Amino acid sequence: MENPDEPEFPRPIASVDLVIFAQSDRRLDVLLARRANPPFVGDWALPGGFVHADVDADLEAAARRVLSDKTGVETPYLEQLASFGGATRDPRGWSLSVVYMALILADRVTLRSGAGTTEAQWFQADTKVSLAFDHRDILGAALDRLRSKVGYSTLPAHLLPEAFTLGELQAVYEGILGRALEKSAFRKRIAEADFVEPITGEMRRASNRPAQLYRLKRARHTTLFDRAL
Amino acid sequence: MENPDEPEFPRPIASVDLVIFAQSDRRLDVLLARRANPPFVGDWALPGGFVHADVDADLEAAARRVLSDKTGVETPYLEQLASFGGATRDPRGWSLSVVYMALILADRVTLRSGAGTTEAQWFQADTKVSLAFDHRDILGAALDRLRSKVGYSTLPAHLLPEAFTLGELQAVYEGILGRALEKSAFRKRIAEADFVEPITGEMRRASNRPAQLYRLKRARHTTLFDRAL
Repeated sequence: MENPDEPEFPRPIASVDLVIFAQSDRRLDVLLARRANPPFVGDWALPGGFVHADVDADLEAAARRVLSDKTGVETPYLEQLASFGGATRDPRGWSLSVVYMALILADRVTLRSGAGTTEAQWFQADTKVSLAFDHRDILGAALDRLRSKVGYSTLPAHLLPEAFTLGELQAVYEGILGRALEKSAFRKRIAEADFVEPITGEMRRASNRPAQLYRLKRARHTTLFDRAL
Repeated sequence: MENPDEPEFPRPIASVDLVIFAQSDRRLDVLLARRANPPFVGDWALPGGFVHADVDADLEAAARRVLSDKTGVETPYLEQLASFGGATRDPRGWSLSVVYMALILADRVTLRSGAGTTEAQWFQADTKVSLAFDHRDILGAALDRLRSKVGYSTLPAHLLPEAFTLGELQAVYEGILGRALEKSAFRKRIAEADFVEPITGEMRRASNRPAQLYRLKRARHTTLFDRAL
């Protein structure tokens, strides 16, 4: 940081934007909000908001505020993705967006349009809908991050409730990867990675026969696989 | 982003800070600069500067400007580490720092103190010297990132010139990990990972016998190892 006696440079606009993923059936969805005001009025955008220097304790608090405002969800899996900043990404001036990626359970969400937007809606994560600002690039970076982590972490399980069947777990991995996985190979990898355990005596009634329910082993919550799926 | 008609919130101070690593003998070093002005006058800090909204095209350009100002290095390995922001990290107000990690060759550096600092100096990366702001946390995060990548990428080779011996390559990995590696096991892993190739006919005169020079295979520049070292 520089000499505070130097002439003050114009400060960039600082915002926090969120890429909020949820699993819907066998599909990975992303939450988008339609902008109520210029620039890009009427376009879909990632939910976000300015950093409120008088309200937010830190960046993560700002991200949690935006997430809670838009979805009512308070305790998601949240990780900072990256920051995007430059002179041309926002016609209002040099702007800087710190982007967080959230994984949430779709059925615990109450969508609210929130300030500055007219509606919020789930889209398929690989939607081709036109996005405001550089949000297409940001969504792409978030999908890359999520997909790169599928192969070596238990991260995708955050898209499931605490108890899940192996079929549901496979559907989450398939939703993220965008392709079907072979069932026996998937189960072999999951067994080798040793990060889920059966919940004794808990079964889910399926169409034909009951399916065993599993949960993440607590200590292995962030366990890495030793090779890609 | 929100309604531009809303009352404007106070904008955070936005800066770019750099964790600049270089290899020195068998040691990993980090570049620190001593602050010439309050806050934290006289303390060592990571090199950095405000985002100059009227000069910097984007965040990476700001990072390259700071790096070039402090070291004269123009083409480093540069990656965005993370952003740190909050109400209490800088007594001047809510501040946001986008942090980049650079890997450079120490012998190509011309240290300059630069605006707002009185001197710049290389420190051992695990130095216990007191650091301004939250720069201790930031340095720790950068070391974690670098160490986590040692096991599965060719990233450390950016701390070496284009041609290097396997002994020099091993020294870089040892400098980052802060521990000695067993030579034959290291060479076996490097051979398996298949990301370096001998430069035909190029040897380095060592103390007793000449050592073969190697370079990164171009196509495998960012190759991942399939398991940790």
